[in-house]
Amino acid sequence: MSVLYPRVALIGLGLIAGSMALAMRRAGLAGEIVGTARSAETRATAREIGLVDRVVDTAAEAVADADLVVLAVPVGVMGDIAQEIGPHLKPGATVTDVGSVKGAVIAAVAPHIPEGVHFIPGHPLAGTEHSGPRAGFADLFQNRWCLLVPVPDSDPQAIARLRALWEGIGANVEEMDPDHHDLVLAVTSHAPHLIAYTMVGVADDLRRVTDSEVIKYSAAGFRDFTRIAASDPTMWRDVFLTNKEATLEILGRFTEELFALQRAIRTGDGQMLHDYFTRTRAIRRGIIEAGQDTDAPDFGRSKAH
Amino acid sequence: MSVLYPRVALIGLGLIAGSMALAMRRAGLAGEIVGTARSAETRATAREIGLVDRVVDTAAEAVADADLVVLAVPVGVMGDIAQEIGPHLKPGATVTDVGSVKGAVIAAVAPHIPEGVHFIPGHPLAGTEHSGPRAGFADLFQNRWCLLVPVPDSDPQAIARLRALWEGIGANVEEMDPDHHDLVLAVTSHAPHLIAYTMVGVADDLRRVTDSEVIKYSAAGFRDFTRIAASDPTMWRDVFLTNKEATLEILGRFTEELFALQRAIRTGDGQMLHDYFTRTRAIRRGIIEAGQDTDAPDFGRSKAH
Repeated sequence: MSVLYPRVALIGLGLIAGSMALAMRRAGLAGEIVGTARSAETRATAREIGLVDRVVDTAAEAVADADLVVLAVPVGVMGDIAQEIGPHLKPGATVTDVGSVKGAVIAAVAPHIPEGVHFIPGHPLAGTEHSGPRAGFADLFQNRWCLLVPVPDSDPQAIARLRALWEGIGANVEEMDPDHHDLVLAVTSHAPHLIAYTMVGVADDLRRVTDSEVIKYSAAGFRDFTRIAASDPTMWRDVFLTNKEATLEILGRFTEELFALQRAIRTGDGQMLHDYFTRTRAIRRGIIEAGQDTDAPDFGRSKAH
Repeated sequence: MSVLYPRVALIGLGLIAGSMALAMRRAGLAGEIVGTARSAETRATAREIGLVDRVVDTAAEAVADADLVVLAVPVGVMGDIAQEIGPHLKPGATVTDVGSVKGAVIAAVAPHIPEGVHFIPGHPLAGTEHSGPRAGFADLFQNRWCLLVPVPDSDPQAIARLRALWEGIGANVEEMDPDHHDLVLAVTSHAPHLIAYTMVGVADDLRRVTDSEVIKYSAAGFRDFTRIAASDPTMWRDVFLTNKEATLEILGRFTEELFALQRAIRTGDGQMLHDYFTRTRAIRRGIIEAGQDTDAPDFGRSKAH
């Protein structure tokens, strides 16, 4: 493939930015990749492992003369970063982000983007429970979705180029409006993460069942929750604080439904439980048929078949 | 290894019994393995794939002259099966089960076990989201725990032999009393399963977020819940109905905790959220260090590293 952006600036050098750097380099889509991170330790690690072509100390320095600027920091600090880089952005450049929430990010970032710079919010639905500059890998976005959430005056050509970049590193791209994005993600990601964090916290608290037993016997189902609940605490704090309304709405629905199932258990309504569990099984089949997960038993963890 | 039981009878031919048959055969631990299942279709499949040495039509027929009888049926029908086989059990034989609940199974089965037959309840903490006679594989129990829950008059030599069988097919064995078992499993398995079923049900219900979007964007976290929520509906209905008290207790704790986190989101208490998410991360590390899950990002689903 040919170079889409002569210079790319990555602000933040965690799992997502690191994976983008490795994937863009492998695909030859960026001329030079410049990166920065707030923490000196992260910058040192990125230099040590050669994650990007050049590591600089400030975001302002990183965006100088950049054709594409990627904000890959926790959602809660996007606004501060935008304020810092605003005056240094090159006319005609594109600014995008990879945050898990879109409404709040647009509200925080858009006011700092100068005339003549294209702001095209984005969100790759990809990640693992690992974080930091060593966590990235070039295949992270293969067959995953990247949602672009253009603002009303986003330039069509700038959108097309950003789409080509994501497709060039393996993602499938869709466009969506911010409110719908934040609701869909509340269902498919934010509420499930909070629920997993909660269940793991409950297990940790239980005194009669010791920690070591919870860990020892975790393969019975609980361990799947612990993977999700091992995700980056700062990133997730910010997601919940900035997608408050949609997350609380889905959690309200969840609680209502949980109470109905608890009542069925209490009253011994086996038919209701059986019907419910049969219905949820069908969704799993849909996900496998859509190529969004493996059909291998237990995610292929067991060396089965 | 040498033969531990000249004849083994498997009552039920699903994932667990099928995996036991394949593992016992590979390790040479059983002389003859006889199996039966209530459904004619399951019996036909088991015959077709040669899952056991001999498939018979009734449980009474299966246990005739068997040295070990394994009840591998949903917890809710264990009592009926025990009543049916009671008069046909060979003196000196061992009867065990693989149910996920122990208190209720003991109450249902023990009265039907004749004098001179050893009843040693058990529970292998192993499984996948697949079920049925084709789902079994010989490695299912490798490095997984099997909990034995002997009743007060269980014979030490019979326990030792059953322990040797489980160890011979790869499991680590512990003994536990029934109440403690049912509480530990409520935390590590039963509550997480109900929560996963609930979250998947909520997603299915949502009208504004269409089914296809929930499926399409499931990789953001939700798909892990769908795997758990694809488990066998009959088995899980019975688990919840028979481990009612412990499950409802843990769900009560879960709801309390979820409300505290929802309040933190609503009031914008970022510090509380961050502290909570940092604590849960530590449990994941414990599980990986204990060898109960893979450290590969995303369970190794991504072709990472």
